[in-house]
Amino acid sequence: MTDSRVVRNIRRPSAELLAELSGYGVATVHEAYGRRGLLAPEIRPVLAGRRVCGPAVTSLNAAGDNLMVHAAVELCRPGDVLVIATTGPSAHGMVGDLLCTQARARGIVAMVIDSGVRDVADLREMGFPVWSRAITAQGTTKEHGGAVNVPVVCAGQTVGPGDAVVADDDGVVVVAAADVADVVAAAAAREAREVLLRKRYAAGESSLDVNSLRPVLDRLGVRYLD
Amino acid sequence: MTDSRVVRNIRRPSAELLAELSGYGVATVHEAYGRRGLLAPEIRPVLAGRRVCGPAVTSLNAAGDNLMVHAAVELCRPGDVLVIATTGPSAHGMVGDLLCTQARARGIVAMVIDSGVRDVADLREMGFPVWSRAITAQGTTKEHGGAVNVPVVCAGQTVGPGDAVVADDDGVVVVAAADVADVVAAAAAREAREVLLRKRYAAGESSLDVNSLRPVLDRLGVRYLD
Amino acid sequence: MTDSRVVRNIRRPSAELLAELSGYGVATVHEAYGRRGLLAPEIRPVLAGRRVCGPAVTSLNAAGDNLMVHAAVELCRPGDVLVIATTGPSAHGMVGDLLCTQARARGIVAMVIDSGVRDVADLREMGFPVWSRAITAQGTTKEHGGAVNVPVVCAGQTVGPGDAVVADDDGVVVVAAADVADVVAAAAAREAREVLLRKRYAAGESSLDVNSLRPVLDRLGVRYLD
Amino acid sequence: MTDSRVVRNIRRPSAELLAELSGYGVATVHEAYGRRGLLAPEIRPVLAGRRVCGPAVTSLNAAGDNLMVHAAVELCRPGDVLVIATTGPSAHGMVGDLLCTQARARGIVAMVIDSGVRDVADLREMGFPVWSRAITAQGTTKEHGGAVNVPVVCAGQTVGPGDAVVADDDGVVVVAAADVADVVAAAAAREAREVLLRKRYAAGESSLDVNSLRPVLDRLGVRYLD
Amino acid sequence: MTDSRVVRNIRRPSAELLAELSGYGVATVHEAYGRRGLLAPEIRPVLAGRRVCGPAVTSLNAAGDNLMVHAAVELCRPGDVLVIATTGPSAHGMVGDLLCTQARARGIVAMVIDSGVRDVADLREMGFPVWSRAITAQGTTKEHGGAVNVPVVCAGQTVGPGDAVVADDDGVVVVAAADVADVVAAAAAREAREVLLRKRYAAGESSLDVNSLRPVLDRLGVRYLD
Amino acid sequence: MTDSRVVRNIRRPSAELLAELSGYGVATVHEAYGRRGLLAPEIRPVLAGRRVCGPAVTSLNAAGDNLMVHAAVELCRPGDVLVIATTGPSAHGMVGDLLCTQARARGIVAMVIDSGVRDVADLREMGFPVWSRAITAQGTTKEHGGAVNVPVVCAGQTVGPGDAVVADDDGVVVVAAADVADVVAAAAAREAREVLLRKRYAAGESSLDVNSLRPVLDRLGVRYLD
Repeated sequence: MTDSRVVRNIRRPSAELLAELSGYGVATVHEAYGRRGLLAPEIRPVLAGRRVCGPAVTSLNAAGDNLMVHAAVELCRPGDVLVIATTGPSAHGMVGDLLCTQARARGIVAMVIDSGVRDVADLREMGFPVWSRAITAQGTTKEHGGAVNVPVVCAGQTVGPGDAVVADDDGVVVVAAADVADVVAAAAAREAREVLLRKRYAAGESSLDVNSLRPVLDRLGVRYLD
Repeated sequence: MTDSRVVRNIRRPSAELLAELSGYGVATVHEAYGRRGLLAPEIRPVLAGRRVCGPAVTSLNAAGDNLMVHAAVELCRPGDVLVIATTGPSAHGMVGDLLCTQARARGIVAMVIDSGVRDVADLREMGFPVWSRAITAQGTTKEHGGAVNVPVVCAGQTVGPGDAVVADDDGVVVVAAADVADVVAAAAAREAREVLLRKRYAAGESSLDVNSLRPVLDRLGVRYLD
Repeated sequence: MTDSRVVRNIRRPSAELLAELSGYGVATVHEAYGRRGLLAPEIRPVLAGRRVCGPAVTSLNAAGDNLMVHAAVELCRPGDVLVIATTGPSAHGMVGDLLCTQARARGIVAMVIDSGVRDVADLREMGFPVWSRAITAQGTTKEHGGAVNVPVVCAGQTVGPGDAVVADDDGVVVVAAADVADVVAAAAAREAREVLLRKRYAAGESSLDVNSLRPVLDRLGVRYLD
Repeated sequence: MTDSRVVRNIRRPSAELLAELSGYGVATVHEAYGRRGLLAPEIRPVLAGRRVCGPAVTSLNAAGDNLMVHAAVELCRPGDVLVIATTGPSAHGMVGDLLCTQARARGIVAMVIDSGVRDVADLREMGFPVWSRAITAQGTTKEHGGAVNVPVVCAGQTVGPGDAVVADDDGVVVVAAADVADVVAAAAAREAREVLLRKRYAAGESSLDVNSLRPVLDRLGVRYLD
Repeated sequence: MTDSRVVRNIRRPSAELLAELSGYGVATVHEAYGRRGLLAPEIRPVLAGRRVCGPAVTSLNAAGDNLMVHAAVELCRPGDVLVIATTGPSAHGMVGDLLCTQARARGIVAMVIDSGVRDVADLREMGFPVWSRAITAQGTTKEHGGAVNVPVVCAGQTVGPGDAVVADDDGVVVVAAADVADVVAAAAAREAREVLLRKRYAAGESSLDVNSLRPVLDRLGVRYLD
Repeated sequence: MTDSRVVRNIRRPSAELLAELSGYGVATVHEAYGRRGLLAPEIRPVLAGRRVCGPAVTSLNAAGDNLMVHAAVELCRPGDVLVIATTGPSAHGMVGDLLCTQARARGIVAMVIDSGVRDVADLREMGFPVWSRAITAQGTTKEHGGAVNVPVVCAGQTVGPGDAVVADDDGVVVVAAADVADVVAAAAAREAREVLLRKRYAAGESSLDVNSLRPVLDRLGVRYLD
């Protein structure tokens, strides 16, 4: 009954849409998406200061085994984000410098791992960005079946093959392929509004005025005292 | 019965006292204060290598809501540290680049948040220092009442408005306004002693001799073997 | 019944062996050692990008007390790694800039602490590398007995005096003194193989081919679909 | 873009299949399912010694809000298990005695909550079983949209409406509706085998013999010494 | 500068008020108090099925030391709840059967400990209820100063001497002495309402109707599908 | 280099010594042993209200694999406590009802597991006591080598074959075989003293008097106020 399919071909959002989405950070995308799709905050970047955006290739593994990561890497195309999940809780180092070397050679732009990563000094040197739950040298086996490009649960969110993944210092958010265009539009609107807000705040205005929050405070019975 | 006061004016320690206090790190202040006032170690800096010191403006919020942060920002003066607490456990991103832009425009020197923060790439770019329990894009509502400039519990310590907050890479410590002068004196004495100790240790002396610990070892029955 | 021995002289692996071992990272050593000796992943470096290797001097302390760290420092020789354990769970700042100044004066190359550390800004400035479970200003007493250079449990692994400790961004691994030569040989073989693999992966080969994993997938019933 | 559908009618596995499945515990079902479907071990029972089995009605809520639990309860039929998820991390008390009273009146047999529960003394008194991540009196709002009977992620596993949920003292496992028949068959085979094993072990046989593990030990180089 | 006062006499709420308050559980009191005063959910009961209510006598201790618990016990009166806090994070067994024997002899009805407890088998046998963060045999010293009957931070909430403490299987809530009368009134009103609700729910009504939530769902755009 | 010895015969403390030791609880033994040997408090009993005492048979396993538990069980004698460790962090269910049936048939009195356990309803029914870090249905493989009756690290403490293990509701403590006689003597003395103390406390005396703590308070500058 084990889910052991490897799906070779997946539909990815258009390069244009992804390029547009890549202009927004995780917090903006998360808001634009109705506060959906945010992976658990335990998923942290190994490299600070990086932002990536790409379609997900998903890899589902037994806990403590990375066989299906090997199977997934060769199905990736340039620009993809490899999303690695396990069927049970795990904090093994599922990926190291060898897999990242291979990934980079195929144009994979990042990995998101609901488990651990190792060789992080090498990864920092090669500038290959990984978001993971843990850093640990603990190795895996390569003995258990699993799946590639099926929907997986990664850090509390469902990620389907071809879903758009955005990751930066705030964490990782996933947008269902069908929703990317809407999210891009909403993010653009939000960003446009925030550019103005940023100017007003930098000029000294209060968000109580800008957001009409003073009546809210009143209604809630908040009293000002000197 | 909700505590929903916003207190506009608070007493701050004198600029002179704060300037003196700002010369000492968190570990020194904590020791000088009789090992009091240290916030829980889960509160970590978003920006490494920064030390700040200033009077607290306190903001008490419902978990998952940041309305009273907005109310607090406009009451801050240049040099203040905004201390953000919640009435229940929370790991939302209570503050992001917009609130920090507004904060910087008002001269706030740092925020200490017993919850999460987002837009940390922006915060690093603008060099605005935040200490928080988590980094997460998860947004808040702006719908619940709370209080500003009342005593709050932040990460295990009571922080009153006008208390002095010191934060650096070791964490955050708060000193009651009435105790700042005493703490400055004790920190100065401690620091003076440590300057000498640092020299003696750098020159090769042992802390067993410098601190007269050999008799302690003896008394405790510690035996030396070859 | 308290273990309160301080053993002055310990056997260290030869400088040659340690020099050879120092050429390998934690992940490689851990693999070469049959996946033994890895400390719990909660032990993280305060300074990123450093790798150290040296014989362990061990210090066993009461929780919340660092008296036996002081006793251990003076017994260290240049090149040693000071390994600090406690008899119960602890998250105190067992070591700060004064102990590290003293340690550096004696040529200690690093500390590994199954508890907390403080003054980390100073440690970063002096470039003294520490791996620890926590960063906290919370101080200790210097009042309780303990031991130096006895076998200790540090973050889930037994560390004996003179065992080889390797630490880098991936964490910390300990190799029993008697096993160092074998580990060096195994690590060299592994590294040689990995150099070749790295080239093949950089050139675009798949680890499914390189590691003969396609038959494994077959045997496990993994089906490829388009 | 918020997912805000409430699906009234769902397909449930047949009563016969569920009755058969209910004969097996979580560990057996999990094994029979190829080690799939197990919720994170943080989900613990409030009442010890209970086993339940039923089709899932799913409720997706904003973190800290239980509006969609209210919407879900009235759509449940006798025998259902109400599975409560949130779109972000949460440890609020999403359910208390009032909701459980309502649930019992509708024949709901249990709730599984990826968040907190309260009024547990009342729940124990009424004998209504709940599995949850936390116990806490912290209340929720009833102000945010969400969905009922859409696939949700609950404690690391996808749960679809009508999927079979089995819960006992070992935790909670979910079986996709389409797989229930196969899992029942596999569980029956496994259980039959275990009945025999239990007898053999009770009679003093060793699992090394029963499972033919001695050659495995041999092959792995395990040496016996006296 | 250490806070080292022991305050012998404190004002307690009237026995009548406390008797009234004791009729309500933690969840009800927490709601009646505007969702204030709830201690962190890590504080769990050692004995299930107990509810206590009484005025707080507070004890502030150094982490890993219980000297001020001894000082606090003798100041307690029958009916008091002893609330034990530490100045830093701690998971020591601060209290065991000897202190609980002493406490019971003085009529203390419960202890709430922001740290650990030991001898829990004895405590269960003597039926003495304790709420704590941990269970551990790890002992403390009796060497460090502290305070009795000063305001303390316990598990994230400020507790003042004479504040009312209510504890049950849901956790612990504290009500400032001045607010007890108001909380009793609000709890009574809430409870009265809940008695009716419980009947209506038991009779099969939906909380969507009882709470007028259908228009809320409408307004939020929640769509019903078949 | 993997440690893959299985040692058939071990020295156990005499039955008389163990019988004497079994008269004391974990907290008393821990104190009598100079506060040594206490396993991490995350190790909790599955069955409340049980106390066991016996010599350790140790089993060292790969994380997620229980092959060496099977090898260890058949080497146990009546009265033994099976102590199960892993070479890396693990929360798998290493043991279930089949292994416990086998264990009980051989007279094993308890298991202590630095990982997870499953089938806990069965274990409760058969009354077989287990102390573990987690409860989870997640199964293991039986494919990896390891060792039996070598010294292991279990939950932060070294446990050697034949060491005495005491476990109760407070946790688990291990006493080196060579120290059992001394610990028994110290525990007896401690217990004798505590019997008297318990009477004095029950009669209303204060521990400040009984332990001569008033001068300590004085010396520490603790001031009494009315």
